[in-house]
Amino acid sequence: MRTPQVQPMPGLPTRVRIYEVGPRDGLQNEAAVVPAPVKAEFIKRLVAAGLPIVETTSFVNPSWVPQLADAGEVLGLLGADGVGVDRPVLVPNIRGLDRALEAGCRAIAIFGSATETFAQKNLGRSIADSVAMFAPVVERARAEGLWVRAYVSMCFGDPWEGDVSTGQVVDASRRLMDLGCHELSLGDTIGVATTGQVVDLVNALDIGGIGREQLAVHFHDTYGQALANSLAAVHEGVQVVDSAAGGLGGCPYAKSATGNLATEDLVWALHGAGVDTGVDLPALVQTSVWMSEQLGRPPVSRVVAALASG
Amino acid sequence: MRTPQVQPMPGLPTRVRIYEVGPRDGLQNEAAVVPAPVKAEFIKRLVAAGLPIVETTSFVNPSWVPQLADAGEVLGLLGADGVGVDRPVLVPNIRGLDRALEAGCRAIAIFGSATETFAQKNLGRSIADSVAMFAPVVERARAEGLWVRAYVSMCFGDPWEGDVSTGQVVDASRRLMDLGCHELSLGDTIGVATTGQVVDLVNALDIGGIGREQLAVHFHDTYGQALANSLAAVHEGVQVVDSAAGGLGGCPYAKSATGNLATEDLVWALHGAGVDTGVDLPALVQTSVWMSEQLGRPPVSRVVAALASG
Repeated sequence: MRTPQVQPMPGLPTRVRIYEVGPRDGLQNEAAVVPAPVKAEFIKRLVAAGLPIVETTSFVNPSWVPQLADAGEVLGLLGADGVGVDRPVLVPNIRGLDRALEAGCRAIAIFGSATETFAQKNLGRSIADSVAMFAPVVERARAEGLWVRAYVSMCFGDPWEGDVSTGQVVDASRRLMDLGCHELSLGDTIGVATTGQVVDLVNALDIGGIGREQLAVHFHDTYGQALANSLAAVHEGVQVVDSAAGGLGGCPYAKSATGNLATEDLVWALHGAGVDTGVDLPALVQTSVWMSEQLGRPPVSRVVAALASG
Repeated sequence: MRTPQVQPMPGLPTRVRIYEVGPRDGLQNEAAVVPAPVKAEFIKRLVAAGLPIVETTSFVNPSWVPQLADAGEVLGLLGADGVGVDRPVLVPNIRGLDRALEAGCRAIAIFGSATETFAQKNLGRSIADSVAMFAPVVERARAEGLWVRAYVSMCFGDPWEGDVSTGQVVDASRRLMDLGCHELSLGDTIGVATTGQVVDLVNALDIGGIGREQLAVHFHDTYGQALANSLAAVHEGVQVVDSAAGGLGGCPYAKSATGNLATEDLVWALHGAGVDTGVDLPALVQTSVWMSEQLGRPPVSRVVAALASG
């Protein structure tokens, strides 16, 4: 249907690494609770479709996130394929790390906040106290040889505090990275960001000592900006982009429609611009169609809708 | 919720002109036929929300486009407000121009194709013959002092021919502009384009003698790329972007019926990046909510869904 670029568009890298968050951030925010064998099958299919990194599940307290209460069971079903350095799990505290290590995990993700209000709402403590809580987690994870990612939430706006300054995000980011994390994922948790803010933040972090090579971006499509913002970050030198197969994570007909960027729409954009991702798009589309059948609702991704109807 | 830029993001203009196509390209491709008074009210509300240009209707043969068979009635209801130089109407041939002039119109749009197959399907003749058909239309319109836009369809891919080369688009565009048109709108009729192609085409047209100041871009969101592509064009110096309030419309020739770029999502992106549009976003969102009630289906725009749910 279109002519793919043979070489990347000027200003783009030859390859972008997609960090697939569908099984964790996606399913965590779906109304339906998916059985463990379906989750395991979903992860297997994503890996088979060429996604280089898949965040598999979360060891957050099951009473907070009942959708992912079966983390141990899912990893048990996957065996060795579910716990490599390219299969991170979300870990909230030292107890979560214990469970991740028991399951054999080799990569974890912790999650901080750029705003005090969201730190209180999501972690039950201040930014300073949450950093103190994560310090021993990262220290032990590193001692065990694990790869560690830090998410920072509310980087571009906060539903309670409103504006979030760049300085605030840089400060929260540095505190997390100073613990010894390998990668920082900038989260637009409520999906309000626009491209200029993305460019400004990437540059401010660089000046603040956190280079582009350490960054990932994580956009939600609440205001339709997720793909444009991700591409702006890639043009700015960011080489890791978070997304969820089929745009999982929010029903388009629900009031709070806050799905993740759809992996398929991102892949279409990157492949079209001559940027390699390693992803087999038809296989990924099939996976999202299958998953939407499990969830009993149509996929959110435009690419999935277009290609699946064909 | 977010910090708007005080000055435009580097590389962006201070202002972008949004060319609103909801009443014409949007409603033309909706399944429901909307009564003339509702169409007139829709146009009034769009103008009141600050949209600088609104394409009102089409004088194409009603048997081809029954949704807009009431063009004369709609313009009659609007009176002088419906026929200024900033209220273009679509005109397919000299007979359509006669009807537009009778209605008092001061601006028209003609529509060509970048591919021979779509020229045959949409206009019933070759590219050369369609240019010959439009020649007297543009000549007479110019003689009457009208402003003339030319659309060129299938600029980035064609459902029958597949790839569309840049040279092909430049050639078709030059033939249309050589007739004496003021503006050229590059249409991604089936929504397959990606950002690198957009940049390449804008540059190729410039080399071919059609400068950025004469260009508009017109993207459909079939593959989720419409906003990213529009922003890529604006970064490349294009200052007119087509969009439809609420993401109205669809393409009957694409496999899935996804609409035009939603004006609200474009406005969110531009205002966030410090680019003025003159549009009052809350008023526009109210208009799209009202229109979606008339159509009996939810709005496609993410911004409308997010803001209307309050």
